[in-house]
Amino acid sequence: MNKALGIDIGGTKISYALVDNNGEIKSEIKKVATPRTKEEIIKVLKDAILEYENEIEFVAIATAGAVNNENTKVIGSTANLPSGYKDIDFQSLSSKKVFIENDANAAAWAEYRIGASRNCKNSVMLTLGTGVGGGIILNGKLLKGKSGAAGEMHFMMSRKQERKCTCGAYDCFEAYASGNGLKQTAIEIFEDETITTYDVIEKATKNDKKAILTLKTWQNDIALGVLGLNNIFDADCFVLSGSMEKFVDAEEIENFVNSKTVTTPTKIYHAKAGNYAGMIGAVVLANELL
Amino acid sequence: MNKALGIDIGGTKISYALVDNNGEIKSEIKKVATPRTKEEIIKVLKDAILEYENEIEFVAIATAGAVNNENTKVIGSTANLPSGYKDIDFQSLSSKKVFIENDANAAAWAEYRIGASRNCKNSVMLTLGTGVGGGIILNGKLLKGKSGAAGEMHFMMSRKQERKCTCGAYDCFEAYASGNGLKQTAIEIFEDETITTYDVIEKATKNDKKAILTLKTWQNDIALGVLGLNNIFDADCFVLSGSMEKFVDAEEIENFVNSKTVTTPTKIYHAKAGNYAGMIGAVVLANELL
Repeated sequence: MNKALGIDIGGTKISYALVDNNGEIKSEIKKVATPRTKEEIIKVLKDAILEYENEIEFVAIATAGAVNNENTKVIGSTANLPSGYKDIDFQSLSSKKVFIENDANAAAWAEYRIGASRNCKNSVMLTLGTGVGGGIILNGKLLKGKSGAAGEMHFMMSRKQERKCTCGAYDCFEAYASGNGLKQTAIEIFEDETITTYDVIEKATKNDKKAILTLKTWQNDIALGVLGLNNIFDADCFVLSGSMEKFVDAEEIENFVNSKTVTTPTKIYHAKAGNYAGMIGAVVLANELL
Repeated sequence: MNKALGIDIGGTKISYALVDNNGEIKSEIKKVATPRTKEEIIKVLKDAILEYENEIEFVAIATAGAVNNENTKVIGSTANLPSGYKDIDFQSLSSKKVFIENDANAAAWAEYRIGASRNCKNSVMLTLGTGVGGGIILNGKLLKGKSGAAGEMHFMMSRKQERKCTCGAYDCFEAYASGNGLKQTAIEIFEDETITTYDVIEKATKNDKKAILTLKTWQNDIALGVLGLNNIFDADCFVLSGSMEKFVDAEEIENFVNSKTVTTPTKIYHAKAGNYAGMIGAVVLANELL
């Protein structure tokens, strides 16, 4: 009975499975579409926990949204989850200890313990998806900040209010480096409001010049952000993860960053811990902290 | 004999004085113009140490340039100091223990222990001078990074290569938020290559519209940088120090940042630890770490 139930709560689906302390998945991975109300989410979680409660030592949840420094509560808003989500008392859902951590932080921890950034005591993970997530590990510890909300990749890439970000500010790194950012860059380059990320990828495989320029511009924006972060953190490595990372050339970014950094050279890796890095990282981290 | 000799080595001058463990200066502060060769710098340091060696427990040096994680050696280049500076073996200069730390980091520590950021376990100090220095304290510890070079405020404020930075990259925060940045912004707004920072301050006191716009633009650039840093760090507070900080309205920056941040509200303070924060912070930090 040294297994935990790992749960990943995202805006689209909730996934869960038994995970051991080494981060290995030990059961079928079950998936449920994320319900639209707080009450229904609680029911999904209770059912999942009930199913495995007798076999486990603890429950570890990777969730969208910032998590407090006590790993008990979601703080702040999570746009893809129903209002009221942050009021859930996760501990009340189980007689076993319940541990929660932000999904990007948890995934960064999985990369640090069993994935691409193993042995990188100072590493930054960037999750390039629809948005951009961030998980920062410094001196072998997750950067949480005063309330747990640290690691948001909303630093400004322009002073001129060129592109509105989903957060309400302008020109955040996320607004350029994300999948949405790639789409916006494509709209500007193709001068076509209807173009999609899929179109860009498709056209690039056919050597379309504008599509290649779009991807290069997008990758250059990511590289500029990584350069700034390496100057701030002097990191051992960066890990690129998420649905968009396969369209990025990590070596090109590494060469660019290392040619410009004022700190010391770093490494850029593609993520290795897989699609369930969130639930795996939550279990491994909880096992270390509980 | 619980006093230390605190030494501050800058590009212009070397200052030193006896400092106690509470950060109080206990002797006259002596100053020497920084010599242009490594050998002459060593001689100044040896003479200073010889003068006080019998009265002290240790020597603590705040120096320009990044310092390794063992607090023994300067790493990387320091533009304002002679080549070879980084080869100095500081420990060889005294029979007492010699501790060194980067001057911005040391000053940030002084603010944290006896100055503006007291009790802020997560704080970022920005030294607005000719350039911009940074000292970052996370969870009550200095952020050093893998080699000691962390805290460089060279993250990009533009994607378009608009302004070259002294570091060789383009559009670093330093290139906008520094005194040099203010001058460059003034040159753009006045369309006058000869205008100086002094002119801008002088004209602003006479309500010159372009001078006021220059200062506002400069302050807005600083605020954008602080916003990004607060999203990364979720900091308890920021401390603004250096020769230029008196031209900044901390309250306006705080209001701007807190209206836009995706983490949680922060505080912006003016520095309090004074002109000798570097040597004071080096002594206080050394006393804690040695």
